[in-house]
Amino acid sequence: MPRIKLTLEYDGTQYFGWQRQPTLPTIQKVLEDKTSQISQDRIQVIGAGRTDAGVHAKAQVAHFDTQSKMTPLMWQRALNGILPPDISVIKTEKVPQHFHSRYSAIRKCYQYTILNRSFPSPFSRNHAWCIFSPLNVSKMRKGADMFKGKHDFNSFRSSSCNAKHTLITLRRLDIDKKGEFIFLTFEARSFLMHMVRHLVGYLVTLGQEKITLKDLKGFLNGSFQKHSQTAPPHGLCLLHVKYPK
Amino acid sequence: MPRIKLTLEYDGTQYFGWQRQPTLPTIQKVLEDKTSQISQDRIQVIGAGRTDAGVHAKAQVAHFDTQSKMTPLMWQRALNGILPPDISVIKTEKVPQHFHSRYSAIRKCYQYTILNRSFPSPFSRNHAWCIFSPLNVSKMRKGADMFKGKHDFNSFRSSSCNAKHTLITLRRLDIDKKGEFIFLTFEARSFLMHMVRHLVGYLVTLGQEKITLKDLKGFLNGSFQKHSQTAPPHGLCLLHVKYPK
Repeated sequence: MPRIKLTLEYDGTQYFGWQRQPTLPTIQKVLEDKTSQISQDRIQVIGAGRTDAGVHAKAQVAHFDTQSKMTPLMWQRALNGILPPDISVIKTEKVPQHFHSRYSAIRKCYQYTILNRSFPSPFSRNHAWCIFSPLNVSKMRKGADMFKGKHDFNSFRSSSCNAKHTLITLRRLDIDKKGEFIFLTFEARSFLMHMVRHLVGYLVTLGQEKITLKDLKGFLNGSFQKHSQTAPPHGLCLLHVKYPK
Repeated sequence: MPRIKLTLEYDGTQYFGWQRQPTLPTIQKVLEDKTSQISQDRIQVIGAGRTDAGVHAKAQVAHFDTQSKMTPLMWQRALNGILPPDISVIKTEKVPQHFHSRYSAIRKCYQYTILNRSFPSPFSRNHAWCIFSPLNVSKMRKGADMFKGKHDFNSFRSSSCNAKHTLITLRRLDIDKKGEFIFLTFEARSFLMHMVRHLVGYLVTLGQEKITLKDLKGFLNGSFQKHSQTAPPHGLCLLHVKYPK
């Protein structure tokens, strides 16, 4: 059966995340409904990353199998014609059956956007965490450097996370300041549940000078207990997913 | 009586424009309600430009008179504390009584954003006009060059525009392409009603090669009658308002 790979852009503001839920609107539900409507059979759409409620994507990847003989371009046009304006198919490809959006992924890249200024932003209100007090970005960068590489990120995950292994290699954690915006870019093979939002929360607490780099190190080692705020979901965006060539 | 100058940023998506209307939500109404609520007397807020429904602003200017002894900074904080998240006060200043947000303005700058790609954009859906067919930007630039300077823009205004004088000096009309985005920046002392959206509509029709530069010249001179689409309001943003130093 032909397998179609979708690359998707979405504004997650109005959705209860990626994953299908019995009654709530989710990205997966909308995609399954629309692909099924087009192909006239029941389609299951599997995504690379299960983004949380309010989290966005610039290039989420998903796949589905279909009996339909439509070309990838026809799929893209048909879907974009009936999808709501906050979800868009930016690319469609025919892929072999061994391609799996989640299991074949070798790297995921998330970006967290902070807006650091003293008054709220109408244009970024759904896409950036607005922090009114000044942040010490050079301290945040030192914290970021500490997180890079292979660590047990057990302290930085949701209490509902049920991952067996908490040893994660953080391949990238860059902090770029552009005017009033601060962009934090994370790259790893996989992440623990809410891990990025926990890391951002701690880096912001460090940037606000409410904790020290030593505290943060202690927290990573499990010897320091002070909890920080979790960064809100609306600043987070799944930037891209990498696959072997 | 002290006069306060406000510089405002707003996302106009949910509003029926700037100007107060009996029953509909408008930016002016929200500001008058909130300033009146803070000062406990009836305040009238006058804006530099009456933006249409769906039009945004990065730095709209307005002023109001108040008996209140609050400092400008107190006004900013108080307003940002109770304004809805799609309106923000980015600056407040005490100004002399002879300052008038509209009549003292010497230049207004509007920016129109086009997104030129073959699929819709969830993130820009309320802030850019998405055009799926390719645009010839160099032709659009030639059209823009023709509009620059002093012309009778009678053909480029709304049928409900009641301005007596239609001779306008367009000080600036720049077209910048940045990736898939095309930004059209307009500067003049004042504009006719819907003038910018009419000009953008014609420039896009030119970029789509549905009319020629000669047709456009004829239209400006009143010798060519073919009407174009008016660009939708959501791509338009009042960028800034200039005053004498």
